[in-house]
Amino acid sequence: MKKSIWLMLVLVLSVGLSGTVNAADGKVYRWKLAETWGPNFPVFGDATKNMAKMVEEMSDGRLIIRVDSSNKHKSPLGVFDFVKTGQYQMGHSGSYYWKGKNFNTLFFTTVPFGMTAPEQYAWFYHGGGMELMKKVYDQYGILSFPGGNTGNQMGGWFKKEINSVDDLKGLKMRIPGFAGEVLAKLGAKPTNIPSGELYTALERNTIDALEWVGPSLDLRMGFHKIAPYYYTGWHEPAAELQFMVNEKAYNKLPKDLQKILTVAMKTAAYDMYTQSYHESAQNLATLEQDYPNVKMRSFPEPVMKALKATNKALLKEFAAKDPMTAEILKSLSEYQAKARAWTNLSDRAYLDTSDKN
Amino acid sequence: MKKSIWLMLVLVLSVGLSGTVNAADGKVYRWKLAETWGPNFPVFGDATKNMAKMVEEMSDGRLIIRVDSSNKHKSPLGVFDFVKTGQYQMGHSGSYYWKGKNFNTLFFTTVPFGMTAPEQYAWFYHGGGMELMKKVYDQYGILSFPGGNTGNQMGGWFKKEINSVDDLKGLKMRIPGFAGEVLAKLGAKPTNIPSGELYTALERNTIDALEWVGPSLDLRMGFHKIAPYYYTGWHEPAAELQFMVNEKAYNKLPKDLQKILTVAMKTAAYDMYTQSYHESAQNLATLEQDYPNVKMRSFPEPVMKALKATNKALLKEFAAKDPMTAEILKSLSEYQAKARAWTNLSDRAYLDTSDKN
Repeated sequence: MKKSIWLMLVLVLSVGLSGTVNAADGKVYRWKLAETWGPNFPVFGDATKNMAKMVEEMSDGRLIIRVDSSNKHKSPLGVFDFVKTGQYQMGHSGSYYWKGKNFNTLFFTTVPFGMTAPEQYAWFYHGGGMELMKKVYDQYGILSFPGGNTGNQMGGWFKKEINSVDDLKGLKMRIPGFAGEVLAKLGAKPTNIPSGELYTALERNTIDALEWVGPSLDLRMGFHKIAPYYYTGWHEPAAELQFMVNEKAYNKLPKDLQKILTVAMKTAAYDMYTQSYHESAQNLATLEQDYPNVKMRSFPEPVMKALKATNKALLKEFAAKDPMTAEILKSLSEYQAKARAWTNLSDRAYLDTSDKN
Repeated sequence: MKKSIWLMLVLVLSVGLSGTVNAADGKVYRWKLAETWGPNFPVFGDATKNMAKMVEEMSDGRLIIRVDSSNKHKSPLGVFDFVKTGQYQMGHSGSYYWKGKNFNTLFFTTVPFGMTAPEQYAWFYHGGGMELMKKVYDQYGILSFPGGNTGNQMGGWFKKEINSVDDLKGLKMRIPGFAGEVLAKLGAKPTNIPSGELYTALERNTIDALEWVGPSLDLRMGFHKIAPYYYTGWHEPAAELQFMVNEKAYNKLPKDLQKILTVAMKTAAYDMYTQSYHESAQNLATLEQDYPNVKMRSFPEPVMKALKATNKALLKEFAAKDPMTAEILKSLSEYQAKARAWTNLSDRAYLDTSDKN
């Protein structure tokens, strides 16, 4: 009898050591993530798939994250509440979509005339950005993380050339958020239109201009066929998407899965910036080759000056209303001054002195 | 007796499920990494520590990587052979250090007048860079991965201003590698000097100039105290360090640990770029405040033109000698043209139109 007990023990031990259940707590965690985007949305949707795949492979199947696109959960901008209430353990969206709930969420995506992506990542991870974001999101029981950068977004597609500040007056433009408010102060008429209706609105002159993202995502929308001017950007120099995690759900994970999850989110965010760079380069080349009549322009200096001054004044107004806004804006602008000095001395000087030779 | 058997089974099962050994194969892997750098080397050394810590935490202690700095293994440039022979499972170094073994390793670090860091990451992960690197390293049984980017490196510290190509003639400069060969063609006298002797060599006029990295690492070397001119870069626009893994050792890891390792290396590389950006910005601010007499300059256009043309001619010579070199250079230059068009339309246009207003 003794012999068979030992045999059983050996058997049980080997199952324990070589079986598929290898978690510290023996559990498989099945999570759900709600993303703002529709199914198979390029680049943005790749970031969530990339993250979920990394987590599953690194955890050997102990943490499985199902990604629900907006066609499934039916509420693209309900993602914040899904995560807050725990209906979904995770979300993927953009922090600036929540400015109606808390204005300060705005600053963790991008700011007009703000930092470029490498500058902004340095701010997030070394300049106090992550700590400020935590301060803003803590009250909702939500952990917020960078979720992928689009890179510098284009200023948009215009049917007519913009030669002066006067040309902005009465301009009907699809441009949501804070940038729209800046334009409104200069006499433009910003509107928001669902993405599915954008092409028709531009074609039928319901709007005179629109901004979307940049070559990475604009090309498939076809705007270049009906609006000949493509302007460089000012309003979203480095739009960072957002991963959200329900804090209680996170706290229930074993330490190793917590680490796997945070590293996977961080990597997926960086990866999306790299992918955006690639897709933009690739699609810009296609655009230039197939549509040589598209005119790439930058707004003239007086227009940029007016946009910048208006933006600055607006931000100042908001900072005066809320100490937290003031704290975030101070951190952002001080860091940007330092980081930009380096950008100017490094990449910018390099491009200026090497590229034209 | 039956009761006690079941009790034992339950006990064993709970130990099996909640104990610390949770690997699919029940093994703890203890690896060693040899890095080219000395102990506590800033930024570069942080990348290896960051990687090893992520791996240990994500694997719940199933893969432990001990980092040996050069004071321990005594052979900063022996890292390649350590990994090739399996004496060390991993290495952290720079691919261009191996150009004496295989010239084509050079191109996976950076090239004079090459891509910026975001452009180059896009090339590695979406433009065929990883595949080409694999082709070059496969014959050595080494897996090679990006290991962290320094960002754009400065052109160096000069005792005298460089106003013309003639000023390069006879210039004794510490500048190793390919860039040194370019300068030699223009009449300069490039040398390599161990880092510990650099300050004295510059102080005693053994050399007239030197390049190191950029503000992130230069400040602690003190060069600004003895050479007043700090020139912007051309020769290493985005130096990417390198993680190496012995292929046989990698293949012995369970799938989940392989994934944990590759994700940790990728993240540590991206993280180092972010950290470099931050340290550069921070140290540049310190430099400007504490040493206002340091003169930041770019080489005049004729000098840049001469450097660029010489570089191009040299690369062409090498491409003619080896089809693999030709293949890599073709991939690099075609990708750079596309990526640079996007950089110019996005970040560069943004900086040019927003920063001076």
